[in-house]
Amino acid sequence: MDLGVGELGTPGNSKPHQPSGQISHLALDIGGSLIKLVYFSTSDDVDDETGRSATESLSVYNGNKKYPVLKGRLHFAKFETTKIYDCLEFIQKNQLHLGGCQHLEASPIDKAVIKATGGGAYKYADLFQEKLGICLDKEDEMDCLVAGANFLLKGIHQEAFTYMDGQKEFVQIDHNDLYPYLLVNIGSGVSMLKVDGDGKFERVSGTNVGGGTFWGLGRLLTNCKSFDELLELSHKGNNRVIDMLVGDIYGGMDYSKIGLSSTTIASSFGKAISDSKELADYRPEDIARSLLRMISNNIGQISYLNALRFGLKRIFFGGFFIRGHAYTMDTIAVAVHFWSKGEAKAMFLRHEGFLGASGAFMSYGKCGLDDLMVQLIQQFPFTASPAGDT
Amino acid sequence: MDLGVGELGTPGNSKPHQPSGQISHLALDIGGSLIKLVYFSTSDDVDDETGRSATESLSVYNGNKKYPVLKGRLHFAKFETTKIYDCLEFIQKNQLHLGGCQHLEASPIDKAVIKATGGGAYKYADLFQEKLGICLDKEDEMDCLVAGANFLLKGIHQEAFTYMDGQKEFVQIDHNDLYPYLLVNIGSGVSMLKVDGDGKFERVSGTNVGGGTFWGLGRLLTNCKSFDELLELSHKGNNRVIDMLVGDIYGGMDYSKIGLSSTTIASSFGKAISDSKELADYRPEDIARSLLRMISNNIGQISYLNALRFGLKRIFFGGFFIRGHAYTMDTIAVAVHFWSKGEAKAMFLRHEGFLGASGAFMSYGKCGLDDLMVQLIQQFPFTASPAGDT
Repeated sequence: MDLGVGELGTPGNSKPHQPSGQISHLALDIGGSLIKLVYFSTSDDVDDETGRSATESLSVYNGNKKYPVLKGRLHFAKFETTKIYDCLEFIQKNQLHLGGCQHLEASPIDKAVIKATGGGAYKYADLFQEKLGICLDKEDEMDCLVAGANFLLKGIHQEAFTYMDGQKEFVQIDHNDLYPYLLVNIGSGVSMLKVDGDGKFERVSGTNVGGGTFWGLGRLLTNCKSFDELLELSHKGNNRVIDMLVGDIYGGMDYSKIGLSSTTIASSFGKAISDSKELADYRPEDIARSLLRMISNNIGQISYLNALRFGLKRIFFGGFFIRGHAYTMDTIAVAVHFWSKGEAKAMFLRHEGFLGASGAFMSYGKCGLDDLMVQLIQQFPFTASPAGDT
Repeated sequence: MDLGVGELGTPGNSKPHQPSGQISHLALDIGGSLIKLVYFSTSDDVDDETGRSATESLSVYNGNKKYPVLKGRLHFAKFETTKIYDCLEFIQKNQLHLGGCQHLEASPIDKAVIKATGGGAYKYADLFQEKLGICLDKEDEMDCLVAGANFLLKGIHQEAFTYMDGQKEFVQIDHNDLYPYLLVNIGSGVSMLKVDGDGKFERVSGTNVGGGTFWGLGRLLTNCKSFDELLELSHKGNNRVIDMLVGDIYGGMDYSKIGLSSTTIASSFGKAISDSKELADYRPEDIARSLLRMISNNIGQISYLNALRFGLKRIFFGGFFIRGHAYTMDTIAVAVHFWSKGEAKAMFLRHEGFLGASGAFMSYGKCGLDDLMVQLIQQFPFTASPAGDT
């Protein structure tokens, strides 16, 4: 089974990939900015883009016991929440909401009940009922984030990695030494959860300066039409044009007595106080970079302070804000490194944006609906193995 | 002696008040955005605006011992750093840099050496030398902040107050139970210092999201011409137009399980992600309010996390960002209250913007220059008494 993030439903431009084969267990995470979908398919077709077989298999272990092989694939897709009608059309067209679990010969679902989490599971419940006849079965957002993170961290090989100076390094997670950890989910806003075990957690903090702030302020300050365009812009920018550095205040000198180098940002956007320049005089690239750095650094700092508070050594960052963007991860990692004086490390997740949706997907297992979920959930730990390893 | 903040040199509009009488001990704090001046005068004139006598007197106590009365007044003034030539002209015109200590018959200063702190003491040293023949005697910025805060907190009656729900409440500071405390100075950037005594402190944290960020981003997003205009605008705004609230995500509902009401800000500027509105479609008032709330809340949160880390019960907020602005103080106080679940309290200072300059002023005493400083510094605590109380 392949758990690679399918680049389906990229907001604003490309159309989602249409899965073939039997589909089951659609789960939704409807946030303030994005709708994330996870579902399972039993397709035997060949991938359009890579030409590789999309049918892969999963051997499920529990200790030394090997369970039957699951054939199929998990799919990940996303839509902007403001484009919810595109999402409804995608679900309808691909009949994502009707799939039972035929390949495992489990009992079909009596009516279209779909697991959903995030605030939109409440906000859009009537819309899903009206347009698709779907009843959204609401799962708590924090429960899903934690269940999704635990699922990914324990179940997926090379899920977590560190990022520093452009180097990605995968971290081998010891299942017996995973807890406790701090989970930082950066969506529109940011939630910080102290996770002590399966279903054992507390939301200890958060910040309202998150992905929605980056994209909202970014839209107002630049002419970007999408979040990804803004991220791409930031890659080319130079924040020193607009940020006030320690050296700008100290005439090019460090403030070494308190450990601040001349290039440390003293005040984000602090140079923009100058009378001589208007918004149009700044390059959007530089604005985007300053904004990204301000927000990533702030999240890194608040995360570290919370990890410190509870003595947590590991901080995992998830949420769609990150989007695998090198500079974002670098800034967060540097912030954690800076504030912890090198004692704490930021870690990232390959399936960062789908923690909540994955958790909602896993919650099918709680209802004992079919063997697929029972195998996926109850028989942790499992290893994902490539096709042919049966 | 009156320690009220003279509304001198308000950036952008009014001209500074010109003191009469003998002037001494000019001290400067040259920051990234503002230059703050503190100096002493022995004037006997009548205040232009209030008609009250500007000559007041100070009885200095140390325990039960009463020291000679000091007649005179401390002056506070500020200029924007970008308008440093206005500041030089003000100093020159009023001969602030030449005043000895004639009224106390101390020895005159041999050459014009002025105590200065902040990064600009380094950056603009040559300019002061060239234009006014002044040698800036550099004092460490953090040392000055702490010396200034201790001076104000111990020496000035009703210096500290709490602010909540529009109510200002003065806090009586017990001199024997002042330490330790967290000092948060919000200038262009923000410094957070754990203060354990006179000259005993550590800079434990800070954030680059500060006053320069508010004013810099505010200038780019609105047409405001001054920091004060932006603050004034924010007073009339409604951040809910542009911030994404929990209720916006949850269809008007609270997320009560984790203690978030529907009106909690989930994502600052999160509503601005909408395709349907451009910058010009938002009222500057609403933008200013959202920005102020984002930054004040963030500072309040990071401050609280640092206070918690060191078990500090008192957090004093200073720096020119606050400017006695009700909504700013309210937001910071609410943030500290929210994150500490009511266990910590934010406190503010009447002379908030002049901590560093006051500290630089106090540093004259270290050189044993004259009786004024000896009395002010060595004979703590003292009480400021109104005119005639001699």
